[in-house]
Amino acid sequence: MEQSLGQRLALLTDLYQLTMAACYFEQGMEAEATFSLFIRKYPADRGYFVAAGLAEALTYLESLRFAEEDLAFLSSTGLFQTSFLDYLARVRFTGEVHALPEGTIFFKDEPILEVSGPILEAQLAETFIINAVSLQTMIATKASRAVYAAQGRPLIDFSLRRTQGTDAGLKVARASYLAGFLGTSNVLAGKLYGLPTFGTMAHSYITSFTREIDAFRVFARVFPKTTTLLIDTYDNLAGARNAVTVAKEMEARGERLRYVRLDSGDMAAISREVRRLLNDHGLNYVRILASGSFDEHKIAKVLGAGAEIDSFAVGTKMGVSADAPYFDIAYKLVKYAERPVMKLSTGKVTLVDKKQVFRHYDDKGKMQRDVIALRNEDVAWALPLLRPVMRRGQIVRPLPSLNDHREHFQAQFAHLPEPYKALENPPVYPVELSPGLQDLQSRVECKLRQGEMGES
Amino acid sequence: MEQSLGQRLALLTDLYQLTMAACYFEQGMEAEATFSLFIRKYPADRGYFVAAGLAEALTYLESLRFAEEDLAFLSSTGLFQTSFLDYLARVRFTGEVHALPEGTIFFKDEPILEVSGPILEAQLAETFIINAVSLQTMIATKASRAVYAAQGRPLIDFSLRRTQGTDAGLKVARASYLAGFLGTSNVLAGKLYGLPTFGTMAHSYITSFTREIDAFRVFARVFPKTTTLLIDTYDNLAGARNAVTVAKEMEARGERLRYVRLDSGDMAAISREVRRLLNDHGLNYVRILASGSFDEHKIAKVLGAGAEIDSFAVGTKMGVSADAPYFDIAYKLVKYAERPVMKLSTGKVTLVDKKQVFRHYDDKGKMQRDVIALRNEDVAWALPLLRPVMRRGQIVRPLPSLNDHREHFQAQFAHLPEPYKALENPPVYPVELSPGLQDLQSRVECKLRQGEMGES
Repeated sequence: MEQSLGQRLALLTDLYQLTMAACYFEQGMEAEATFSLFIRKYPADRGYFVAAGLAEALTYLESLRFAEEDLAFLSSTGLFQTSFLDYLARVRFTGEVHALPEGTIFFKDEPILEVSGPILEAQLAETFIINAVSLQTMIATKASRAVYAAQGRPLIDFSLRRTQGTDAGLKVARASYLAGFLGTSNVLAGKLYGLPTFGTMAHSYITSFTREIDAFRVFARVFPKTTTLLIDTYDNLAGARNAVTVAKEMEARGERLRYVRLDSGDMAAISREVRRLLNDHGLNYVRILASGSFDEHKIAKVLGAGAEIDSFAVGTKMGVSADAPYFDIAYKLVKYAERPVMKLSTGKVTLVDKKQVFRHYDDKGKMQRDVIALRNEDVAWALPLLRPVMRRGQIVRPLPSLNDHREHFQAQFAHLPEPYKALENPPVYPVELSPGLQDLQSRVECKLRQGEMGES
Repeated sequence: MEQSLGQRLALLTDLYQLTMAACYFEQGMEAEATFSLFIRKYPADRGYFVAAGLAEALTYLESLRFAEEDLAFLSSTGLFQTSFLDYLARVRFTGEVHALPEGTIFFKDEPILEVSGPILEAQLAETFIINAVSLQTMIATKASRAVYAAQGRPLIDFSLRRTQGTDAGLKVARASYLAGFLGTSNVLAGKLYGLPTFGTMAHSYITSFTREIDAFRVFARVFPKTTTLLIDTYDNLAGARNAVTVAKEMEARGERLRYVRLDSGDMAAISREVRRLLNDHGLNYVRILASGSFDEHKIAKVLGAGAEIDSFAVGTKMGVSADAPYFDIAYKLVKYAERPVMKLSTGKVTLVDKKQVFRHYDDKGKMQRDVIALRNEDVAWALPLLRPVMRRGQIVRPLPSLNDHREHFQAQFAHLPEPYKALENPPVYPVELSPGLQDLQSRVECKLRQGEMGES
């Protein structure tokens, strides 16, 4: 499936990528261009970002090609010359990519990746690259906050039904696992990405039986090792008593009920009552799973209120990053034909040229400050974060596995000082521009203002 | 591609659909179940919803089947008996669906669709149906508000780069067209759904030339009939003067510049200045397109401030429904084996049994109030909205075209009284329950409270 990603999706682009490409083609503009992908500002309450989605972007670039039926469609629009379409049939991405490894923590204005190659090729990829990286980065960032709020309790992704489409359903499962979730309810994601899958039962299952306890009994018999009983269909405590009865029946068969699930009501109060009821019957080993509109804030709130919840199912609000459903992310030309470039549009100035991000750590190994520098600038005592991940259109193999990314993220998060992890109003992590970048930036801006603006 | 949707996506479901299915299978529960899909509450500022996504849900149901590799994966989880997996290999959806035609305006609590069939089949489809219908309904609803705010000015979908994944990118183009957009920048959506596609140029295109005017000249030469010049890369007015120069050169060749595009700054003020400049040079025919964080509120604001904008490109905020990135939508069992059912969970009571929505109009043809009734109840002088769209697992053909849905929506919107179209704090449209539904609802609730709660 991944092999043909770039072929299946060559037309999943903005029409202007193709009209600009036609201009580059007609003009014979074949020089190397570098584009930089970065986030312009922090959405509400975010103090850091988690890079994700790179593997998908690289797989797309490596397999990008226009199929005959794509070219036939483009021809039917009447916009393009045959010579250009013939050229498109042969286009492959032949350039290079430097990128933050997935799972890397990064900050506003820092390049997530930089693509260099013939301008036509590097421009064509804009739409897909933004789409792929922004979705997974947004979800990994959101999911990491829920993991932090849960203080070690396992989280399961339950978002599939409300994610924005099917592709998002898969990518949310992947990105939330990368950020520390234990697994997902999404079976196809389990198959595609090798994720642990988890499931309970729906209210409809309960209501299809005339009595709740019958529904519980059947499930426990069919899944003696993995039963989670949903207890709120009619009344949480009545449901918990039914669960106790079934758990005792399971014990008599040498089995153990694993979880009861709460899905509505005052979670802190109910979970304590249910915990007490279970313990009163010697069922201390039965754990409590809670679902229902959880995100990092609600998790922190119910735990702060003393909830006795062992695990959370996190759905919609993480799956659409509800409080920040998009990031102000951009893919901007920063160099063309050896000339550093920028635009000056109000409030949207870009950082010129090929760059590198350097990270300083304090003597306890905590992240201290970052420096955005020119790619070949030397920043002493700091760790460069962008790595070459594609050369001459080929992925630098082997690609790390998803579990590698997950571990990389955990290591990164351990080095992020606590204040930046705050769920509300975190401080701004210090990111500086290197002297070399500052100097070049002001020289280019000055020249442009004299040139373009002087003409007016 | 659509033929195999249900096959490609059979595993795109929550694991619990399969564990519940295993229980139904083991129990021999084959009676007919009816599930109802509805929205529980209005998100901020919404006074109505626009039904969309039905065609995708039906195509999925008609082609739903588990491939050998899916079954092999399920087998590898160790959760399921071979007899159940053998059964899954033969499962097809054999039931019926009643639904609102796409483009229908509807309200909170009203069934968007009801699925009836053997409980295992109707339950399995839950995750995909919610996912498909909620995304497109959410986007069509959001897009219709932008269309309303634009007061007849054409809107183009520019959201692809920031939609939540690739599937959303396609569905947003479709749903926004259904709700009245003129077209999209998304080339693949153009191909798949037959939508008009539009494109301009990026800042990167401009900055790849040493002078803005050279970039303009090349574009105008390559696309003499469809040129839109982006004028804000360095300075809007300097850019507008360059556009005037190029427009005059085009005139000399017998061509006409179509649009200039604004993408930043104070849109009302800049658009008036640019309009004046164009008119001063006899370029009254050159129109102004604006892009940059537009949604219904910003469109209304800039038009209210006297902007001279002829067309809007609407991107991210519509493409992720930024102020309401999910709907509280549910697919609930309402009847099983001739028994009307509901759950009683706090704040989440459902309406029992198979239903119909009836709409009353006033003597001017405006929508007056709706009545949710039992499916076979008679509501005099009112129009039933749910129609049979699938029988015995087969779509009732022909499926209306996307343009049919678009026209249906326009007709519906014309009949919606103005107050419900308000962009902020619209009043609540009156939706009543029929006497028959009210009576059954209270009898079922009473019986459940006596039964399940009495047990406690």
